[in-house]
Amino acid sequence: MNVNKQPTSLSSRNGDHDLYDTSEETIEKVALEFIQLVGSQYVISKLDERRLRSITKWSPASPSHIPNLVVLPQSTAEVSEILRVCSRNRIPVLGYCGGTSMPGAIAATRGGVCVDFNRMDKIVEVHKEDMDVVVQPAVNWQDLNSHLEEYDLFFPPDPGPGAKIGGMIAMNCSGTNAYRYGPMRQWVISMTVVLADGTIVKTRHRPRKSSAGYDLTNLVVGSEGTLGLVTEAVLKLTSVPKNLHVAVASFPSTHAAIKAATTLVQSGLPIYALEFLDKHSMWAINKSGLSKKLWKENPTLFLLFSGLQAAVQAQVETARRTAEENHCKEFVASARREDIDLWWGTRKSVAQSLMEMKNHPTDLFLNADTAVPISRLADMIEETHQVIAKAGLAGSTLGHVGDGNFHTVIVCPESQRDKGEDVLTWAHHRAIEFEGTVTGEHGIGFKLRDRLVDEVGPEAVAMMKKASGHALLERFR
Amino acid sequence: MNVNKQPTSLSSRNGDHDLYDTSEETIEKVALEFIQLVGSQYVISKLDERRLRSITKWSPASPSHIPNLVVLPQSTAEVSEILRVCSRNRIPVLGYCGGTSMPGAIAATRGGVCVDFNRMDKIVEVHKEDMDVVVQPAVNWQDLNSHLEEYDLFFPPDPGPGAKIGGMIAMNCSGTNAYRYGPMRQWVISMTVVLADGTIVKTRHRPRKSSAGYDLTNLVVGSEGTLGLVTEAVLKLTSVPKNLHVAVASFPSTHAAIKAATTLVQSGLPIYALEFLDKHSMWAINKSGLSKKLWKENPTLFLLFSGLQAAVQAQVETARRTAEENHCKEFVASARREDIDLWWGTRKSVAQSLMEMKNHPTDLFLNADTAVPISRLADMIEETHQVIAKAGLAGSTLGHVGDGNFHTVIVCPESQRDKGEDVLTWAHHRAIEFEGTVTGEHGIGFKLRDRLVDEVGPEAVAMMKKASGHALLERFR
Repeated sequence: MNVNKQPTSLSSRNGDHDLYDTSEETIEKVALEFIQLVGSQYVISKLDERRLRSITKWSPASPSHIPNLVVLPQSTAEVSEILRVCSRNRIPVLGYCGGTSMPGAIAATRGGVCVDFNRMDKIVEVHKEDMDVVVQPAVNWQDLNSHLEEYDLFFPPDPGPGAKIGGMIAMNCSGTNAYRYGPMRQWVISMTVVLADGTIVKTRHRPRKSSAGYDLTNLVVGSEGTLGLVTEAVLKLTSVPKNLHVAVASFPSTHAAIKAATTLVQSGLPIYALEFLDKHSMWAINKSGLSKKLWKENPTLFLLFSGLQAAVQAQVETARRTAEENHCKEFVASARREDIDLWWGTRKSVAQSLMEMKNHPTDLFLNADTAVPISRLADMIEETHQVIAKAGLAGSTLGHVGDGNFHTVIVCPESQRDKGEDVLTWAHHRAIEFEGTVTGEHGIGFKLRDRLVDEVGPEAVAMMKKASGHALLERFR
Repeated sequence: MNVNKQPTSLSSRNGDHDLYDTSEETIEKVALEFIQLVGSQYVISKLDERRLRSITKWSPASPSHIPNLVVLPQSTAEVSEILRVCSRNRIPVLGYCGGTSMPGAIAATRGGVCVDFNRMDKIVEVHKEDMDVVVQPAVNWQDLNSHLEEYDLFFPPDPGPGAKIGGMIAMNCSGTNAYRYGPMRQWVISMTVVLADGTIVKTRHRPRKSSAGYDLTNLVVGSEGTLGLVTEAVLKLTSVPKNLHVAVASFPSTHAAIKAATTLVQSGLPIYALEFLDKHSMWAINKSGLSKKLWKENPTLFLLFSGLQAAVQAQVETARRTAEENHCKEFVASARREDIDLWWGTRKSVAQSLMEMKNHPTDLFLNADTAVPISRLADMIEETHQVIAKAGLAGSTLGHVGDGNFHTVIVCPESQRDKGEDVLTWAHHRAIEFEGTVTGEHGIGFKLRDRLVDEVGPEAVAMMKKASGHALLERFR
C-alpha cells in the first residue's frame, strides 16, 4: 500500500488532533481491513484517483483537501462495516457519488476515508401503483427518468447533469423543476442511512404522509453527509408532465424581466418553470456555440408549461400578456418537441457556456447561490449587477427566479480572485439583509461554513450541532 | 397558592425521579417566579382549569395526566424565561394551544408546567407580495384564512376546527387539503423556537427555498413540543383556489369506491381533495342531523376540484368516467356555492357526527390514523371492516384516501374498551406490515409511543433521541 500522509495543517485544525486520526499507520491498518471486506481492487490509495474524488471542475477544492483512502462498497452491510472501522479508529469520512458539488461538499478538508458509492448504482424496484421507486445512491437522475419513461412516471429534481441521488439527497438540490415540484426533500419518502458508528437506520416506511416521530428523512436530506451515509432511498414519483409548451421572452432591461417574473409568481399561475438569464448569460451562450440557435442578447425569461391542453393555452396567454405589460420586446411560444429541446436545452447549457468563457484553464469560475423573498428579487439582482460592474469584472446573474433563487457567476483570472470573492461575499450578506439565504440549492460545503453562522445565528448552528448527536461531523464542528 | 401534588406513580416512571422534580415545594417556588414575570392572573393552579388543558373530548387522557401549573406568557422573551426557570428546576414542560389533539399530545403524563399560548394569538404581518404571513402560535387556521381573504391568499392545512398554529406545527397536521397541498410541514417557512434551556432560535429566514445547514424547521415540525416551544412562525401561503367544484359519488361497495379512488390517484389528475366515507359514516351523518341533506348510506367519495375553468370541467368529467367505470351508483357535481358548503360541510362534519353516536357520555370515541401505500389501501380498509365486524363493534372508516390515510373510529361503551383497543392495535400492526404508518397526521402523543418503536425500529428511535440533544423530552425518553 502506498498510503498518503496528510499535511499537518489539516490534522491540527481546531483541535482535530484529539478528534481524528489520519496518521499513516492508522490508514494503512484500516486499508487492510477494507481489502478483506471489499477486495483490493476497491480500496484505492493512488494519489491521482484520490484527488479525482475531491477536486473537479465544478468543485475546485484546495490541493490539500484529498482523502487518504477511497473505498467502494457494494452493500449497506459493507458501508456499515466501513463506518464501524472508521469510527473505532477516529477517521473522518465523506461520501462520494457524482462529484458535481459546487460549494466543495466533496472536499476532504480533514483527509480520511472517501466512501465512493459508484458500485451501488441499481434501480432496485419501481412501485408503479404507489408511484415510488427504490434506488441506490449512485443512480443518476437523468438515467432514472429514462428508466421511468415506460411506466409514465417522472422524478422532478433536475440539478446539474451528472448529479446522482446520494449527493442530491446530501445537498437538498433542486433545479429548474423546483418552482412547480419543490426541492429534493419533497421527493424523498424514506432512506436507509448508516450512522457514524455503523448503525443502520431506516428513516420511515413508504406511506406518502406520516406524523410518526421526528422527521428523520428531512433531517438527513440536506445534512451533507454529516449525519450518516445514505445507502438506499425510496423516492416519490409523479406522472410525466403532459402537453409541454415552452416560451422565451426577451426584455429591454433586467428590471422589466424580473418585474414580469414576480408578477407571474404572485398571480399564482401554475407555471411549470420560470427561469431568468441576464444579457451576459445570453452573450456567453452565443459565444460558446453550445446552442444551435443564435439568441438576442437581452435579459430573457425562459418558461415551461404543462397540464391539460386548455389550461396550458390559457397559461401561455396569461404569461404573454404579463410579459407584454412589462415591455417585453419579443415573446415566442411553442409546443414542438424540437423547440422545447432546443430552447430549454439552451437554458440548461448556461453553466457550461459560462465555464467556457475562461480565457485560460487556470481562470476561476466563482459562483453564488442566493435566494431571497420574491419582493426583494429585483433589487437583489439589480444591485448585484452594479456591484459586479463597479468591481470591473465580467459576471452573470441567472437562475430560478420563480423561487427567488439565482446564481451569480464570475469568470476571471486568478489575479482577480479577491475582487471576485468580494462580490460573492457582498451578495451573501445582501441576501441575508433581505431575509434570504446564502444557498438556495447548492448547500454549505466547506466554502460557506462561516456564512451559515452569519445567516442563521450561533444559536441555530448550536442546535444543528446538538441534532447531530455524535455523527461524523466532517463539517459542522 | 394551591399547588397540586402529583401522584407518585407519575414522578417515579422510568427513573423520572432523577430527571424531573414536580414536588410541591418546587412548584410553589417557580409559581412565585412566574407571577413576577407574567402577573398572578396568568399563573393558574386551580385543578379544574389545569385539567381543561390536558383532557378534552378529543383527547381523553388519564385523570392523573394533569399539569401542576399553567402559565400564560405574552412574548418570546417570557417563554424563554419560563423555560429557563423550568430547566433550572428540572420541571417537565408542555405547550398548549387549541386542545384538539387526538393521541393525547396535551396530556401532562409527568405533570409539570403547561405553557398555554392563548395570549399569543396575533397575526403579526402579512407579506402579500412574498405570499407569506408571520403569526403567533394561538392563531386558529380558520380565523387566519378569514383574515387572508382580503389579500386573495390562502393557508391550506385544514385539521379539525379549533386547531391552532402551535399545535398544528407540533403535530405536523394535515386534513382534506393535504392531497393537493401537502401536510403542515410544507407550509412552514421558518419558526422562532425556544429550547429547553431558554435559548431562542430562529430556524431560518424567509426565502422559499434553502439548503443552508440542517433543516431545523422540518426537525421541529412534528416533534410534538419535545424539542422546544414555537413562539412565532412564518407560514407559506398560496392564492385562493378558483372555480371550486364539488362532487359526490356513491358506490355499491367499499371495494368499488376505493378502486375508483386509487385509479384517480394513479392517473395523476390534479384533484384538489379526495375523501372516502364508508356507509357507517354516512349513516352517522344522517342520524346526527348535522347535515341539512339526507344522504344515501353507501360507501361514498367526496371530491373537490379547482383551477382554470376548462381544466376543472375536464377533471370533473374524468372523475365521473372513472367512478362510472367502477360501478358508481350516482355521481353528482356542482359549482354552486351553497352545494359546495353543504356537501363539503357534510364531509367535514363526520368526526362530530360519530362523536354524537355515543349513547352515554362515558362511551368511548376510539380512533386510529393509519396510512399505507396506495396499492395497499383497498385491502387495508376491507380487512379493517372485517376485523370490526368480527369484534361485534360499531365502527367506521373514513378519511383522506388520496393520501392513503384513513381513520378507523369505534364508538363503544367503556365495557367494550378492550375489544375496541384490540381492533386499533390490529390496524396499527397491519399498516406497518403494509409498509405504512400508525399515524398519517395525528401524531404519536402519549398513546402511540410503543407503536412508534414497532414502526420505525429501535435504531430510528435512538436517532430521534440523539437528535433531540438535551431537550425537554416530555415524551421520547
